[in-house]
Amino acid sequence: MTGEPVAPPRVPKVAMEPTHEAALRADAPEGEVGVVAPQRAVFPDGLTLACGQRLAPIEAAYETYGTLNADKSNVILLCHALSGGAHAAGRHHPDERKPGWWDLYIGPNKALDTNRFFIICVNVLASPYGTTSPLSIDPSTGEPYHLNFPPIRVTDWVELERMVLETLGIERIYAVVGGSTGGMRAFEWAVRYPERVRKALVIAAPARSSPMVIALNHIQRQTILMGLEHGGINGAERGLMLARMLAHISYLSEHALWSKFARDTVPETEFWSVTYQVESYLEYKATTFLQRFDPFCYLYITRAMDHFDLGYTYGGGDLREALQRVQATMRFVSFTSDWLFPPAGQQEAVDILQSLGKPAEHLVIESAWGHDSFLVERVKPMLKPVIKEFLERDE
Amino acid sequence: MTGEPVAPPRVPKVAMEPTHEAALRADAPEGEVGVVAPQRAVFPDGLTLACGQRLAPIEAAYETYGTLNADKSNVILLCHALSGGAHAAGRHHPDERKPGWWDLYIGPNKALDTNRFFIICVNVLASPYGTTSPLSIDPSTGEPYHLNFPPIRVTDWVELERMVLETLGIERIYAVVGGSTGGMRAFEWAVRYPERVRKALVIAAPARSSPMVIALNHIQRQTILMGLEHGGINGAERGLMLARMLAHISYLSEHALWSKFARDTVPETEFWSVTYQVESYLEYKATTFLQRFDPFCYLYITRAMDHFDLGYTYGGGDLREALQRVQATMRFVSFTSDWLFPPAGQQEAVDILQSLGKPAEHLVIESAWGHDSFLVERVKPMLKPVIKEFLERDE
Repeated sequence: MTGEPVAPPRVPKVAMEPTHEAALRADAPEGEVGVVAPQRAVFPDGLTLACGQRLAPIEAAYETYGTLNADKSNVILLCHALSGGAHAAGRHHPDERKPGWWDLYIGPNKALDTNRFFIICVNVLASPYGTTSPLSIDPSTGEPYHLNFPPIRVTDWVELERMVLETLGIERIYAVVGGSTGGMRAFEWAVRYPERVRKALVIAAPARSSPMVIALNHIQRQTILMGLEHGGINGAERGLMLARMLAHISYLSEHALWSKFARDTVPETEFWSVTYQVESYLEYKATTFLQRFDPFCYLYITRAMDHFDLGYTYGGGDLREALQRVQATMRFVSFTSDWLFPPAGQQEAVDILQSLGKPAEHLVIESAWGHDSFLVERVKPMLKPVIKEFLERDE
Repeated sequence: MTGEPVAPPRVPKVAMEPTHEAALRADAPEGEVGVVAPQRAVFPDGLTLACGQRLAPIEAAYETYGTLNADKSNVILLCHALSGGAHAAGRHHPDERKPGWWDLYIGPNKALDTNRFFIICVNVLASPYGTTSPLSIDPSTGEPYHLNFPPIRVTDWVELERMVLETLGIERIYAVVGGSTGGMRAFEWAVRYPERVRKALVIAAPARSSPMVIALNHIQRQTILMGLEHGGINGAERGLMLARMLAHISYLSEHALWSKFARDTVPETEFWSVTYQVESYLEYKATTFLQRFDPFCYLYITRAMDHFDLGYTYGGGDLREALQRVQATMRFVSFTSDWLFPPAGQQEAVDILQSLGKPAEHLVIESAWGHDSFLVERVKPMLKPVIKEFLERDE
């Protein structure tokens, strides 16, 4: 801790130069994944978690896109973020209103090209989208686990992904790709199972959660718990809405908020609740989030995120020692306006990897759309070639 | 709204060059203000607020430091921030544990030199530190106002400051100085009463609150209101603690959090409440805040902050028209790591003022301590000369 002015962290912005014909094919017409079926894997014996407790049985929801080739050498494991699920692309029914969460990037000729790759996405433990969670029935009580669910770590998510892959006879994966908490899993895969991963693409995720992330998550959890304490499930649900609002603004940037809302007001204002468009937007988004998520799940997933620290888990506190394990070729992608996982966090990891002689690079994309840039359609022209070239180039 | 990469806003960092002997005297030994007495002014007829409602009676708490000279030409109006009060310097009793909130900068030979200036600080309406607030008795009911208190705007705070000054026979002020919401008042003084203000020093405050500020305040208010709804006053108080935690991290920076806490854990962890030092710190600070603040007051003050928009109030929506009114010499000070009121917000105002030929300048201080830099002791070596030179130079 010093009183001296602190220089901004050194983060080189690397221009993307297409070095492979794949990048030049980036303009090939994109197709759609179409209708996809949710899949499930059941593990009656469950898993011994990082906390030491055994969770059993476990059910895992997952989806796949594209075709697994004969020697199983074309597997991309895609890792979803906090509020995502296994449904990453296509539609479950032709009339489903929205496609999966990364449909922009998954399909024929897209960044994750289903003409070439077999893509699998597994819903994480504690998520409400089909995998075992605090909403599942605790066999010892016959009631939902709720707060009796065991603590979950990112490591447990990686383990469940491994278990699902093994049900398909997949031992090694061509690439692991993820953003945000999905990026944490992609990174942990490269450290935990170095011999199984050829390429790892980590988007907007560092080697460890920062105290800013922990602080924001703490406030969000405490808001849910206060609601639960004073207002039961109704209170917890309003708490979840407020938590989501805070998370939502941490995914955006100052610029994004000015661009979308400025200081515009709503036609019918209510002094305490909604006067400004930005308030109305946050309430609306939180309402739709409540329809698709659960307060108990939110508590567990954010805590897993806090505990993420590769140096602690694999290096006895020493990140350099942990990263010495990596064998995959790694690409890190950050966004200049991401204040939740600022580029400096990724640069720290890349500096260490490079100093260890590992093939790792860091591309910082100039984007005003904050942490959520990897989900924002207007960033796609910049992000698509960065992903596609990395996945398709020969190594 | 555009998909193009957005360049960071242009904010020149201006080096501070002492141009006046006052700056050279900055090393003179500093003295203390000593014991000060709280003062009060009573306005039985109250004030017609910006919202159109009349609030009466009004009592205002204020303090003064230094001596008013014969021609009343040495007055500095100091404007406190959200959770501050009139008690800016010295101690009310010799054994008071902490001095006033800006004691670092007020006293003999300090930045606001009491050998030279008469400094006055007035507690704002709706604050719990002695001025009329939601905790005051509503004469129409005999009960505290609570949510029946009328809406307050920054303009009303300026009006009360004017009224208190007039009880002392002070019409014109040499300088107005403030940071954060205090900076909003300093700025509004220069626009509302151009002929009464010779110099205005605006620290870490823009010409209008951003949608980020509104969003953060909305979540904080809704947390308090959720607590109130489900848990009565106990719930509102826990809500205030959570609101304060969020506000607190918005006053800090990524760097400050890493420096203070990193990922350190506490000796006795409790899974949901406190595992990390940063959580323990936020809970502790929120507990002390609860002892000195009030949830109802917090609701009103943050709403006043949201509504701050000089272009709207004085220019029919046109900031340029509003700033055309300014006659004071203005200095704006920002901090590089302030993400609540980023330097770009102040630069917008300075660009307009300069284009109108007004004497205005913007000094951006390289500080890693976020919005709260103006309260942080280690920033004083940089901030003190910036304030002192501006106040003491001849115009």
